Order: sequence, then structure tokens, then C-alpha cells
Amino acid sequence: MKHIASISIRCLGAALFLASAMSAPTSMAQTAGADTTKSPGAAARAAPATKPRTIGIVLFPGFETLDVFGPVEMWGRLPDYRIVMVSQHGGPVTSAQGIDTMTTYSFETAPQFDILMIPGGAGTRTEVKNADMLAFLRKQDKGTTWTTSVCTGSAVLAKAGLLDGHKATSNKLAFAWASSQSGKVAWQGHARWVIDGKYITSSGVSAGTDMALGLVEKLYGHKVAEQTARVTEYVWNDDPAKDPFALETQH
Amino acid sequence: MKHIASISIRCLGAALFLASAMSAPTSMAQTAGADTTKSPGAAARAAPATKPRTIGIVLFPGFETLDVFGPVEMWGRLPDYRIVMVSQHGGPVTSAQGIDTMTTYSFETAPQFDILMIPGGAGTRTEVKNADMLAFLRKQDKGTTWTTSVCTGSAVLAKAGLLDGHKATSNKLAFAWASSQSGKVAWQGHARWVIDGKYITSSGVSAGTDMALGLVEKLYGHKVAEQTARVTEYVWNDDPAKDPFALETQH
Repeated sequence: MKHIASISIRCLGAALFLASAMSAPTSMAQTAGADTTKSPGAAARAAPATKPRTIGIVLFPGFETLDVFGPVEMWGRLPDYRIVMVSQHGGPVTSAQGIDTMTTYSFETAPQFDILMIPGGAGTRTEVKNADMLAFLRKQDKGTTWTTSVCTGSAVLAKAGLLDGHKATSNKLAFAWASSQSGKVAWQGHARWVIDGKYITSSGVSAGTDMALGLVEKLYGHKVAEQTARVTEYVWNDDPAKDPFALETQH
Repeated sequence: MKHIASISIRCLGAALFLASAMSAPTSMAQTAGADTTKSPGAAARAAPATKPRTIGIVLFPGFETLDVFGPVEMWGRLPDYRIVMVSQHGGPVTSAQGIDTMTTYSFETAPQFDILMIPGGAGTRTEVKNADMLAFLRKQDKGTTWTTSVCTGSAVLAKAGLLDGHKATSNKLAFAWASSQSGKVAWQGHARWVIDGKYITSSGVSAGTDMALGLVEKLYGHKVAEQTARVTEYVWNDDPAKDPFALETQH
């Protein structure tokens, strides 16, 4: 019975995915479907060299772990995008939780990204004063299709001037500090994430995973985003206006 | 007004934490509180060398990203536990989503862990046949206080014989395969996570984050787990029996 139930759920997943793929705007060589293949990593890493577009995630010392890896989990399943890590000098970068992640590119060697993401974390307190970081973000932003952030990553984007005239949000526990980085941003105290033009900013830490699926929805439609959540057993808050941690003054 | 609201929420968080700390069984040099300090990483990484206990996470090629980093986000805030990464040969290990994480220890050099965690991912299909992996898990398990897994990590624990006679769960989309690794386990098709003695196994991918907070609850009480969820803006499913992705036959 267990076996039958498992097959049944897999088939439901496949059917949902196929229905999604039919409405997707780009080629959909399936890479979703968590953990259902027999060769290690084959499902999620299918022919990365052939993926035509690049998501670049900007790391710095003291980045918040889940800000990065919630989105990596969701975006790592996209058929047309490979994910690369970049940092000022390349090499390993230590998160606020003490784990080292390898970065392939430095600011000098990084290619133009299609999608840029900067996470938050205590390290943003240093990065808002890092002229090289701000210059790198400004340079990349000129060529991106989407420029995104999680948590206090928006403080760094704001300090770089990239959010001027746009709506944006940030970590609700660090909102006063984040919003003080620019008076030219329409800061939103009640938002799980905010899309304004090509700029997507999310609230704190875990909100980044909901935002990441929001971007999947923008790129491939709601059903693909739902299917991605399903295969990762993730309960997606799919409404950017539904913010369980909103600032009280916004109610 | 934004500033006042932010301070108010911070104070609420601090009050909640202090209330929690008073009921905690061990010393609580506060390390929670996401992203509210001015020095990079200081909050979450306070004096790691003085942390007396070790959480060891076992990586392998094709591990599932969020299986590892959801728990790292939550456990990285514990005052008494440092997190270390281990793999068969040490060095960088590539996740199913293509990102390299550094491991500090090899199977030969790893110290005894207090808490062991093995993630899932497509790579588990190889690891259940890896005699060195199974031997390492058996050896570590003899000295652990808690032996845990996320997703199909439980399949590897089961193959090592560690879950014999215990209740356990796994990824619901790979349940037939995972449960086929041992007929001596009481596999649970309806469970977000399962605690049986010192063994904690979780359902797929995102369920690992809920399980991680479940372990925080075991170690420090419910209020500290709630506070950890709050500072990471995480909507914690705190009921291990509430499984939105349960197998249909279990209803």
C-alpha cells in the first residue's frame, strides 16, 4: 500500500508539472522533482553547462545562512538558470552561523548575471560601508533582468542607490537600521516581499524562500512555483502582502 | 514611527527570550536575535571555541541544500553547540543544487559528535551502498546524545541498522525507496518529524527546519524554539503530527 501511495503521489506531481510546463514561457527540460532519481544530483543538476542564464548570489562575511540557501533550494531547480556564488575576493566565505561556502567568482572575475541576489545578515553592517561592494552592485544592476535581496540585503541595495524611488522591504527586527540607509526608498513595513519593477526585496531570513518562489512564479507561472514547493515539502506563503511579522504601525 | 515600532518589537523579542532562558536547562549566553548587532557575525558566532558541544552534519555529493541549511540556521543560534561539517574525505562537497560547502573533518579526523545529522538528497542512493559511510554512522551513533536525519537521510540511517525497532519517517515522495532500506523500522507515513528515543527523523527537505526547531524545544524548551523562529521570521509548524504532505494511505 505504501508503494502504491508513493507512485500515486509521484504521478500527481508529474501531472501537475506537465500542466505547468505547458504554460511556461521558456523551455522546460524538467529539473524539479526532489530526490526521485537514482543518480546523485542528476535531477537538479542536469547539464548545468547548457543552462543559458545565470543567478549570481553575492556573499560576504557574516551573511545569514538561510537567506542564501532557501532561495538556492528553489532556484536550483530551474531548468534555464545556473546558480553561482560571488564574493569580493572569491574563495570560501563564512556565514553568520559559521559555515564556509565556496564562491566561484570575485568581483573582478564575475560575469554579468541575469538575476542578482544579495542576502542579509549581521555582515551587512560592514557592507553598507564597503565602496567596492556598492560599486559591484551598481555595475551588475545595469545588466540584470532582476535585482533581488533577502532580509537586510535590501539595506545594501538601498545604500548603493539602486532602490531610489522604489518600494522595498527588509527584516522587521532590523527595519529602522535598514530603512535609515536611504530616505529615497518607499519602505514597506507590512510585506513578506515586494516586487517593484525589476527589484524584489524580501523580509527577514525565511521570507527569502517565499520570495524565491515568488520569482519562480514570475518566470514560469504559479503552477511551477507550487510544484517546486510541493517537491520540497514546503508550505509556501504565496501572498506577498501576507506578513506574519509585519511592523505593528502598519496594521 | 517606524523606529519606535522596531524598538518595540525588539523589546518584545528580548522579553520573550529572557523568559525562555529562565526555563532553559543549560547556560544561555544569548546568541539568538537575528541580525541585530553591529559587528559581522558576532551575534550568532559568539565565542564558538567556548561552545562545549558539537553538532556534526554529514555531507556527501548530491546532498539536498535546504536539508542542511534550514537546520544550520536554527542550530547556529544555540549557545552551547558549535556546528561542524564532515564528509568522507573532507574538503568541499557539492550539493544537489550545485553549491560547494566546505567540510572541516573527514571520517578519519572527525571528533565524537554530541548531535549527528545526515541530510537527504539524490546522493543518498549512492550512500546506502557506501560501507565507509555506514560504518562512520554506526561508530558516531555509539557516542551521540541525538542521532538525526532530514528527508532521505533516514534511509541511510536505516541501512546502517540504527533505526531497527524504532519509529521513523522520510521524504513522502521517496517513501517507498527509503522504507525499503530496512524492514525492521516502524516507518511513519504521516509525520512531519518523529522522535523515538534519541533518534529524530524528518520528512522531506523543508520538514528538516521544523524538526530542527523541535530539537531546540527538546534542548531549551518551547519558548526558546518559538523565539528562534521569530527572529528568523519563520512560521514554525511545531506539531510533529501535522504533516501537510502525508501519504494518502495514512489518513
